[in-house]
This record gives sequence, structure tokens and C-alpha cells, in this order.
Amino acid sequence: MSGIKVFAPASVGNLGIGFDCLGLALEKPGDEVIASKSDTPGLRITQISGAGGKLPYDPEQNTAGVAALRLLEYLGATKQGIELKIQKNMPIGSGMGSSAASAAAAVYAVSELLRTGMSKRELLPFAAKGEQLVSGGIQLDNVATSLLGGIILIRDNATLDVHRLHAPRGLYVALIHPHLELETKSMRGVLKPDVSLQKHIQQSANLASFIVGLFNSDIELLGRSLHDVIIEPQRASFIPGFYEAKEAALKAGALGSSISGAGPAVFALCPNSLIAENAAAGMQAAFAGKGLETTLYLSGINQEGAIVA
Amino acid sequence: MSGIKVFAPASVGNLGIGFDCLGLALEKPGDEVIASKSDTPGLRITQISGAGGKLPYDPEQNTAGVAALRLLEYLGATKQGIELKIQKNMPIGSGMGSSAASAAAAVYAVSELLRTGMSKRELLPFAAKGEQLVSGGIQLDNVATSLLGGIILIRDNATLDVHRLHAPRGLYVALIHPHLELETKSMRGVLKPDVSLQKHIQQSANLASFIVGLFNSDIELLGRSLHDVIIEPQRASFIPGFYEAKEAALKAGALGSSISGAGPAVFALCPNSLIAENAAAGMQAAFAGKGLETTLYLSGINQEGAIVA
Repeated sequence: MSGIKVFAPASVGNLGIGFDCLGLALEKPGDEVIASKSDTPGLRITQISGAGGKLPYDPEQNTAGVAALRLLEYLGATKQGIELKIQKNMPIGSGMGSSAASAAAAVYAVSELLRTGMSKRELLPFAAKGEQLVSGGIQLDNVATSLLGGIILIRDNATLDVHRLHAPRGLYVALIHPHLELETKSMRGVLKPDVSLQKHIQQSANLASFIVGLFNSDIELLGRSLHDVIIEPQRASFIPGFYEAKEAALKAGALGSSISGAGPAVFALCPNSLIAENAAAGMQAAFAGKGLETTLYLSGINQEGAIVA
Repeated sequence: MSGIKVFAPASVGNLGIGFDCLGLALEKPGDEVIASKSDTPGLRITQISGAGGKLPYDPEQNTAGVAALRLLEYLGATKQGIELKIQKNMPIGSGMGSSAASAAAAVYAVSELLRTGMSKRELLPFAAKGEQLVSGGIQLDNVATSLLGGIILIRDNATLDVHRLHAPRGLYVALIHPHLELETKSMRGVLKPDVSLQKHIQQSANLASFIVGLFNSDIELLGRSLHDVIIEPQRASFIPGFYEAKEAALKAGALGSSISGAGPAVFALCPNSLIAENAAAGMQAAFAGKGLETTLYLSGINQEGAIVA
């Protein structure tokens, strides 16, 4: 039976300074979804690997399933027999955009399987519906990034006003996942509803300057801009060793370091792969000092997003 | 006696979405400062025109004077006899960067007169000292814009981390000065010290998207991004007719419209000069409906900043 296998990458949401509006796609890791036609009408998830039994097979309870279902409804193809096999290659609840990657992979796989001819931008609203199951609202920072690749700015979630940004060559990310679990929803709950005007100005000027740095390939400006004065201070205490890890990354030459998405994963954005390796070693040692095991991911910036693997 | 005449342009501070971090220079109007050598030691302001007698001749009390004095101190040239003649060509306290233009013109004129060979960026801290006399703190959004020209992003005032942004061709500004006077300092006082996290996200995503629009010459994105949800709602009530004027500008095809600096001047950013003329007519009519007289300035974006005139 014919099938399509799609890879969709992990992503670093927020990038510190772009809370809920910025994301960066990694080359690896990423989730894989195989979509194949079946004689049994309707969508079924027939296999989930790598999730330690934590993800539901009921499509309406699964981000990949919801994303695929909404697309099939749009296509008027809910009677079409389709099987999804999901291979998770990153930890759940880690701040690496795990649910977004599965949702992005699922819609792209189903779209390719049914030869809809739809563009990734046209598929975005359906992937977003899958992600919404986990995040509670329409949050495109991970899902648009995983689907489209690159560095993505979201002007407005409701109207899917998303923009792919120019990214200078050579940037490399060290992403460390310390083995503790945080829930995105509860991590949103710790945030104060207000921000001082002064910090708003500082943070938005940093975000704006980060984008100037991307367009101008001004690596030093990226470094000067990567300071999250709003979200990081409120969430850092939930990640033992965060500040030590960040300090180690900066000492190794990272441009900046902060929490990936809602954490607990921590990223360091680096000017090249060697510095990323050195930053990663320092960060892992910092977490080890707190008795935490870690998983390390080293990656360039993914420029393709979801692809047929 | 040899002299140098310098023109420095008016500027639109904040541009709505970039409070305290964004500015746009106009081709006109602008202030002119003539610096000439004198046999009397020290700096003197010998003429001020166009200010209706409102500006002090004491150099330490005058933005142009302070800017020039700080530069002369840096150069060790305080004994040098210099006369400044200041021609104001825009209203004071209007939100058009009047004091910044005089400060920028003064430092550039003195620098050229003394043939210091200093770049405009090197002159920026001295111009900023002049502007500080009026604004109460280091605020580069007008003064860097007037000195350097173009559209300027300020990442950090303290370290003078300013960036000239790419500006698409053809953009045109309608700037209306309704004849009422507001003080910058008191207009800052009306602002609440806090911003909701939601509005912070919205505003910073808009600022970031505006910059993407500039780099990509995406005119429609500029329009979608030009929505100030933080400052404008707090200051608009001090400008009778503001919302009517803004509505008229948008109806005429302006990309966006908001308060220039701390007001009361109101700008409309337009895709071309014809739309700017139509927007201006609508805005003037709106203010006339409130019994306010207005002065209109129509201008492209100044790409040169301060120049020897």
C-alpha cells in the first residue's frame, strides 16, 4: 500500500526575546509521520513509537490526529481510509516543539498522500489546530516554524500572518534537554499578566534589533540583542542550573542563551558549530552539577521545514 | 568671517509602534544652524529666528548650545570663539523633533567649521546631550534620526546602539501639526508604568514585522504592522480630533497613522505622495471640525540627515 513518510523538525520557540512570536527550526531532531491509504474508512493512528506510551491513539486526542482530521474535513475526505504511523524523536513537554512537529508532519504527509497540491502556507491552519490541542490557543511559533523551516516571525496568530526571515549562514544551535518535565500550560501560568513599560521598550527594541541582525548578517548585533528581560527571569527558577548553563554557554562564545519555548530545554545560539559544541559541554556540566541528566542536540538552522523523507 | 550652514531635518519619533526606539527623518522641514568663528573666546548664540522668542540665548539653556558646548569640551576647544545663528523652521513642542534637529545641526555645523573629521556617529553623543536638556534623559529616537537620516532603530540609548534601516522607495509622510501645545515631559507623565503581557507581544510583533516590511519592501505588511496598541490609546485624548484625523488618513489609503513623538503632531505614513496629499486633506478637515488650525508638512523620507546646506 502506498505511503508517504514526512520529517518535520524540532523548533526553538520564543528564542528568548520573541515570546509567542518567534521560532527557529532545527535540522535535527524531528518527528516522522508515515501516512498510508487503507481500506478501512476514516483516519486511524496505528502506531506511535518513541513516546513511551504517553500519547493517545484516538485521533481527536492526538495533535497529529487532530491536524490531519481538520485537513480531511476541509478536503471533504473524512471517509477516506488513512493510517498514520508516528515516530517521535524528541521528548514530549520539553520545549522543543514536539507536538508542533508531529502536527506539521501529519498534515504534510496527508496532503502529499492525497496529492492535494496545497502549499505549506495553506496547510498551516490545520497544523495549528493540532498544536492548539496542547497549547490551548492558536500558537504558531512552533508549528509554523516546523512546517516552513528557518526563522519565523508571527505578526498575528489569528490571521496566520507569519514571515520567514533571512538567516545568516553558519549559525548553530546547542539545545540541551535537562531531564525534568514541565507542562506548557502551567509554565504559562507562572507569567505575570503585566510588563513594565521600560522592559517592554527594552525587549521590543531587542527583538527588532535581532531581526535587523538577521537581515544584515550582523552576528554581533544578534548577540547584543539576545537578552530576554521579561520571560526568562520568571521561568528560570523552574529549571535548576539554568543560569549556570547560560553563563557557561556565553563563556564559550555563544551569542545568547535562554529557555527554549516553555522549557525545560535550554538553547544557545552560536556563530558556528565548534562554539556550539563547546557551549554544549559547558551547559551539560552545569546541569550535571545540579544532578540533572541531559540530552544534547547540536544542529544548524533547518531551511526546509517539513519534507518528504 | 568663514561660516558653515547646516540643515538638520524634523523627525517622526516612535512611529507609533516603536516607542522610544524608532524614528523617521523627513526631507522637510528642518532647522538651520550657521556656525562661524569669532574673535570673542567661547561659544555664543547670537541669533535665533523662527522661535517666537521662546528659546534662550544662554548656550547652557539651549539644546543647540549644549550640544555644541559638549562637543567643544571633548575637543578641548572651549576657548575657541564661535557664534551660532539658529533658524527654527518648525514649531517647538510639536512632536516633530524640533530640539533634536537644532542639536544635530549645531554639532554638525561646529564639527564642520572646526574640520574635526568626526563622523556623524561620533557626533551623536554630543547631539544627544543637547536633546537631553529637553527630554530629561538620553533619548536618541529623534536626535539620531535627525543627524543620520532615514529610519532609525535604537536598540539601546545608553550605548548609542543605533541602526539605520532599509527604507523602501516612494514612502511619503503627511505630518499635521494642530495648533495646540503639549510638553514632552508631561506627555510622558500620562503613560501608565505597566503594559499587559498580551499588548507587549502584539506591539513587539508589530514592530518586528514593520522592520521585516522595510527590509522586504513589503508595503502591505508595513500597513498591517502600524498599530500602536500601547501609547496611542493613552495619549490620543490630549489631541482633539485625533481619531477622526487618523480615520480620514486610513480612508485615503495611508498605511498607518499615529501620534508623532509625544504629539500633538499626527503623522500618516503613505505609499506615495498622492495618497499623502489626500490623507493630509482629510486630516486637516478633521482637525478643522474641532476648531483647530493646522500646519501641514508633506515629505518623503530624508536619506541624508544633517547636511551642509
